[in-house]
Amino acid sequence: MRKTTTKLADGRELIYYDRDESASRDVRDRRPLEAPVNLAEVRRDPVLGDWVTVAAHRQSRTYHPPADECPLCPSRDGRLSEIPAADYDVVVFENRFPSLAADAAAHVHAVNAAALGIAGTTGPPGAPLGAPADRPLHLARPGVGRCEVVCFTADHHASFADLDESKARLVLDAWTDRSAELSALPDVDQVFCFENRGAEIGVTLAHPHGQIYAFPFVTPRTAKMVVQADEHRARTGRNLFEDLLRAERADPVRVVLTGEHWTAFVPFAARWPYEVHLYPNRRVPGLTGLTEAERAEFPGLYLELLRRFDRLFTDAPSTRPAPEAEAPPPTPYIAAWHQAPRRGGAELALHLELFTIRRTVGRLKFLAGVESGMDAFVNDVSPEAAAQRLREVAI
Amino acid sequence: MRKTTTKLADGRELIYYDRDESASRDVRDRRPLEAPVNLAEVRRDPVLGDWVTVAAHRQSRTYHPPADECPLCPSRDGRLSEIPAADYDVVVFENRFPSLAADAAAHVHAVNAAALGIAGTTGPPGAPLGAPADRPLHLARPGVGRCEVVCFTADHHASFADLDESKARLVLDAWTDRSAELSALPDVDQVFCFENRGAEIGVTLAHPHGQIYAFPFVTPRTAKMVVQADEHRARTGRNLFEDLLRAERADPVRVVLTGEHWTAFVPFAARWPYEVHLYPNRRVPGLTGLTEAERAEFPGLYLELLRRFDRLFTDAPSTRPAPEAEAPPPTPYIAAWHQAPRRGGAELALHLELFTIRRTVGRLKFLAGVESGMDAFVNDVSPEAAAQRLREVAI
Repeated sequence: MRKTTTKLADGRELIYYDRDESASRDVRDRRPLEAPVNLAEVRRDPVLGDWVTVAAHRQSRTYHPPADECPLCPSRDGRLSEIPAADYDVVVFENRFPSLAADAAAHVHAVNAAALGIAGTTGPPGAPLGAPADRPLHLARPGVGRCEVVCFTADHHASFADLDESKARLVLDAWTDRSAELSALPDVDQVFCFENRGAEIGVTLAHPHGQIYAFPFVTPRTAKMVVQADEHRARTGRNLFEDLLRAERADPVRVVLTGEHWTAFVPFAARWPYEVHLYPNRRVPGLTGLTEAERAEFPGLYLELLRRFDRLFTDAPSTRPAPEAEAPPPTPYIAAWHQAPRRGGAELALHLELFTIRRTVGRLKFLAGVESGMDAFVNDVSPEAAAQRLREVAI
Repeated sequence: MRKTTTKLADGRELIYYDRDESASRDVRDRRPLEAPVNLAEVRRDPVLGDWVTVAAHRQSRTYHPPADECPLCPSRDGRLSEIPAADYDVVVFENRFPSLAADAAAHVHAVNAAALGIAGTTGPPGAPLGAPADRPLHLARPGVGRCEVVCFTADHHASFADLDESKARLVLDAWTDRSAELSALPDVDQVFCFENRGAEIGVTLAHPHGQIYAFPFVTPRTAKMVVQADEHRARTGRNLFEDLLRAERADPVRVVLTGEHWTAFVPFAARWPYEVHLYPNRRVPGLTGLTEAERAEFPGLYLELLRRFDRLFTDAPSTRPAPEAEAPPPTPYIAAWHQAPRRGGAELALHLELFTIRRTVGRLKFLAGVESGMDAFVNDVSPEAAAQRLREVAI
């Protein structure tokens, strides 16, 4: 893999990852761009204890552009996009409308403090915002961190499932490289690589891409995992994830796919109609811990899972609603890499969670009052039936 | 208020709440209904520690029926609905497709245990399912509890915001009565009254209605509130919610509406574009704790909040996208009553959380990878700006 780090016209970083070791990446970004504005801050919810990011500058971000104005296509035929080169293999760049960015501190202090009504805390730029002494429940900090876009392919009309194994491997290597680099940034507590796929998920750019968030806090989901894993260690002396993987493999009713180095299963208490968790058989805290053998096997297994997801709602068995005359649109999904945070995650295990919000042809699982109000999920598909269906749609 | 408890043809309970003390409710349900099937179970997620409800029997539930087949309209003109009477004031009945129900135990044992592959745990009907001795991470229990539907009005085309104050008061009294009755059921840990409004939220019946869930566990959201409130008590000797309400009232930059007995404000770390929390000024654990004066003031304030929500995206100021030629559809929202659970919630405070997933005209806030994968919310509207907008749209 060849890595070439460059800058866009407004100072954002753009990094080419190439399979061709001789690739030359010297095309300059010729757009007249203004420096991006970042007003992000993170606020602690005093009732739930979670950090919430407030990024009010993002309302005007790019929204479902036509294909010939796609900012993720290469720059070709006189049209300048986010990627200066006329073609690319995999490319990563800083989001132009980031929720979190390195320069958030100064902006918060200059622009937002007055609006917040927290006059007592406007110290010198760069100082943490904190909470005013008389309102200790209102903790806020600049939204320091980083948001990156990962373009999986220059082909606007492809999807991750269309990649060949060597390209999927290049994406894995890019995720790994970004995880190493971002987790070394001073204010970053956790790196999160993910893909949102499909307009039903809220994706506003059709070009196949994922994102990476480098958070200045441990995310609420990860914090809960840490609590459970630490409790399990205290109670049993063993690791939670190792015990869990052993239990699923011993009774494979929910197992979907196994390799020599990886196991994919539907979790016992799945929240989503079709949800698969993919673990390396050997516990590692993050992507950088994978061996060459584990990395080599990943692309085939993951591509197979994604292709099965796209077959879930075609060729439906008779107990399900008949498929429409037309094939349904590709399955919307979220793919989320869980990695240990920088501190306090010694018990965590790297794994990928892949799930769709579609529950049957033409019907979505919505997060309404029970889920969004109480975080109490109701799943209409039994995990065992979901696993069976995901085994059925193997070719 | 007059309350009349009746049974539907399949044995489900239906309760009329009438402002007219002389209302007679003796119309029988003449439909040939089969007894509902409930295969629900609750499973503990070993990685997050949350209970998830698996309700695989609900896939075939009623889905966007035409208005002339609405199951929530009264039975009129020869058409039989869920409500036998030809008119009603407010009516509550057990959901025909419940996620949780009183008879779940027997069904799980008879039908599901084998499919679960947990042979060792199929004890006598009614016994808790539990986890097999060799797989302690896989905890499951029958989905015992109750799901009810609350019809706010017989008028199919109305919405809650169209109700008059006396009708809204009747709904409050029905919520209160149900909370008292359901929290007394043997397996119920928490009662949750809520309304989902709008197809964008996933509502499949247009008739104005809400729902009530009686959970056999403390919901994940409430469990987190209990932890925060208990920690605040240990640290400060004071109640978290009382401190929070005092802080918001002292610096009303996020306050939207105040009455003599209630305060509505946008939370400091709001997750949603427009989100309002409505608290009684005097802390009570649940709806049954409200005084007559508090109950009397609630309808006017709540109706005003709902009407402002419907005005949020009309008459947009020039900094927002221009409104469409046609008025946007009514604002989708979730309204969620938070009450203390039966046990362990001594520090909790009754309040209502009202929020919309719409962030601007024609655009929704989606829960994609960051939110659904990591529970880390990004809000594109600053809470202070949201509060200002919610004050602007008062008439």
